[in-house]
Amino acid sequence: MLSLHLADFSLDHFLAHYWQQKPVVLRGGFADFENLISPDELAGLACEENIESRLVYRKEGQWQAQFGPFESYEHLGDRDWTLIVQAVNHWSPEVAQLIQPFSFIPKWRLDDVMISYSTPGGGVGPHIDLYDVFICQGSGRRQWRVGDRGEHRQFAAHAALLHTDPFEPIIDVELLPGDILYIPPGFPHDGVSLEESMSFSVGFRSKSARDMLSGLADYLIDNELGNALISDPQRPVHQHQGQINVSDFSMIKAQMQALLDDDNLLADFSGSFLSKTKCQLDLQVLENPYDETELLEQLMLQPMQRIGGLRCFYLDQTVAAGVCYIDGERYEFGASARDAVCALCDQESLSYASLKDLLPQNALIAAESSALLSALTRWVNAGYWYFAE
Amino acid sequence: MLSLHLADFSLDHFLAHYWQQKPVVLRGGFADFENLISPDELAGLACEENIESRLVYRKEGQWQAQFGPFESYEHLGDRDWTLIVQAVNHWSPEVAQLIQPFSFIPKWRLDDVMISYSTPGGGVGPHIDLYDVFICQGSGRRQWRVGDRGEHRQFAAHAALLHTDPFEPIIDVELLPGDILYIPPGFPHDGVSLEESMSFSVGFRSKSARDMLSGLADYLIDNELGNALISDPQRPVHQHQGQINVSDFSMIKAQMQALLDDDNLLADFSGSFLSKTKCQLDLQVLENPYDETELLEQLMLQPMQRIGGLRCFYLDQTVAAGVCYIDGERYEFGASARDAVCALCDQESLSYASLKDLLPQNALIAAESSALLSALTRWVNAGYWYFAE
Ligand SMILES: O=C(O)CCC(=O)C(=O)O
Ligand SMILES: O=C(O)CCC(=O)C(=O)O
Ligand SMILES: [Co+2]
Ligand SMILES: [Co+2]
Repeated sequence: MLSLHLADFSLDHFLAHYWQQKPVVLRGGFADFENLISPDELAGLACEENIESRLVYRKEGQWQAQFGPFESYEHLGDRDWTLIVQAVNHWSPEVAQLIQPFSFIPKWRLDDVMISYSTPGGGVGPHIDLYDVFICQGSGRRQWRVGDRGEHRQFAAHAALLHTDPFEPIIDVELLPGDILYIPPGFPHDGVSLEESMSFSVGFRSKSARDMLSGLADYLIDNELGNALISDPQRPVHQHQGQINVSDFSMIKAQMQALLDDDNLLADFSGSFLSKTKCQLDLQVLENPYDETELLEQLMLQPMQRIGGLRCFYLDQTVAAGVCYIDGERYEFGASARDAVCALCDQESLSYASLKDLLPQNALIAAESSALLSALTRWVNAGYWYFAE
Repeated sequence: MLSLHLADFSLDHFLAHYWQQKPVVLRGGFADFENLISPDELAGLACEENIESRLVYRKEGQWQAQFGPFESYEHLGDRDWTLIVQAVNHWSPEVAQLIQPFSFIPKWRLDDVMISYSTPGGGVGPHIDLYDVFICQGSGRRQWRVGDRGEHRQFAAHAALLHTDPFEPIIDVELLPGDILYIPPGFPHDGVSLEESMSFSVGFRSKSARDMLSGLADYLIDNELGNALISDPQRPVHQHQGQINVSDFSMIKAQMQALLDDDNLLADFSGSFLSKTKCQLDLQVLENPYDETELLEQLMLQPMQRIGGLRCFYLDQTVAAGVCYIDGERYEFGASARDAVCALCDQESLSYASLKDLLPQNALIAAESSALLSALTRWVNAGYWYFAE
């Protein structure tokens, strides 16, 4: 298992002084770090239809970018190009292991693990992200420059490549295998490969108030909530036709406010919304689905593994009722399921022991109804969890 | 000018005891009321592409509904059918006059004037609306039954016709020309024409919290507002991967809350949103547009008329800066324009006198810049206001 090694300060210090505030190099963050996927496997993923990938290179000094899927890389030569693949943690259990070391940040903040393979001279150019990122250097060396936050002009160096002007570096380092560069949102950065190399970017992303509000509006529509009309009995004779007066304005505002004041509604929405994935999951529907008895038997033999990238959350507001949110859906298993729901959301690997209070005690009598067993069976059959062996 | 006559109680009494609360018949609400449009003219409007209309009739005892535009009405025979045309106030200045008598309700609550022409036996069937409506009886007599609020099953009597089950009437009256039936949202009602007749429905509609929130989300997107990301520096080491804990939930909620707490933002949004029309406006772009000097000259000779259905609002929050909202757009004319902006939004007919503090004093020197004159000129040229003669 990978574990993060901070040489110069504690995790608490990192969170208090760097997270979301300033970039920092964590030298030797991973001891003996090795690529979690080979360049060939990465190149293979980038040939697939439903995996997001990009090639960035220069042609006669001009930046070029191209979206996958790709068919070959031979025309690119042996320098000055980079291949980037998004959400590799969705497709490779080995790469998904890179997330656990960063579990001091909650999963709802996680975006994905993006991987780049670069030839000498390759890089995506100077740019600014909205993400917090831990760039973990795999094989090879890369030169990274990071500038300060501030007013940086952004422009399209190519239709698919948002760049920023050259900047004065506040960090200028050569990353070696196992080194980690943390960069908060807003700091311009530029990495140039010194030799053939791989980088693993563990990205964290938060939503804007607008994203949340827009998601909430969709949630209300999908669930037919919040549709009571503004009601205005007892109004006085209105004086000015074109005026939306203070009391009408307050009334309109109070009604919108009431939606945000409803903590159960907001918890259900936030859980559902934040548990949606941005990139596709590697869902393999079982050809021979389990029935509940068979599933219980398997689970007694070995734990269920959650597929990479699946988002499972609970909130204090609703977890007491055994509510959790998985891949955009809300599930409710009742108060007795509280601990099971926490295990389901907190752990990548789910054992019989952690769920057994809620499961039939004997596979032979599994016909005994268990809402949780029936959900687990559906999830395994749909590919959300799987048995490794 | 039409004026409303309440025989049995005052307007204050109506607002305190009936508006949004219970239906009531206002006998002789309009003295000597005459159709504001002829059946032929109405039938003509329903032949136009961009005017919303509907035919409701029965065929072998089955309800039928059909959307316009229509080409002829001859096949319908001489009984049991109704023609309904929406937003006739947008197309007929005479019909638009029906709104002023109801100006004790602010314009932002107004929906439109819908008119129905019925043959004997005609009607749309028993149904429930989300609207407050004043059904003003024109020529002919109609029998109206209104039931109480409550649990009423609703069903599609035809794909385009939402009906409700038979109900016990709390009102059962024959409306005569000039009588008005007020019905709040939620009360089932059914009108059957006793002879050839016309009804004029002045409808008021309010939004739901969901409509408003969904509009706000669109407004934020269109205006690139509210896009700052949730920021979470100084977070402690997180313990449970799948948990969205109380403090994170509060943070998410507080950021959404901050948008609603911004009264200027909310005023700009509400003004813009509520000033959008649901049905098309009869905008006639001038073939020979005025220049500013010519417009000022005209305005000195006669008032500008606002076209029917145009929605123009101001809010106390922003009117001090001369801000108004017209047909979905925000306009700002500065603090000195406060009174002009109120006149613009409150009055259907706009005189030189009501604006003159903000207009050049002499048409010959109209080159003198006036943001208001330039906006008025654009509005007249685009057909939002017009000169009657
Ligand atoms: O791997 C690269 O070349 C780019 C990485 C990067 O810029 C990021 O993860 O934000
Ligand atoms: O005019 C009609 O027949 C129907 C009127 C009506 O139901 C309404 O205005 O709500
Ligand atoms: Co970056
Ligand atoms: Co109705």
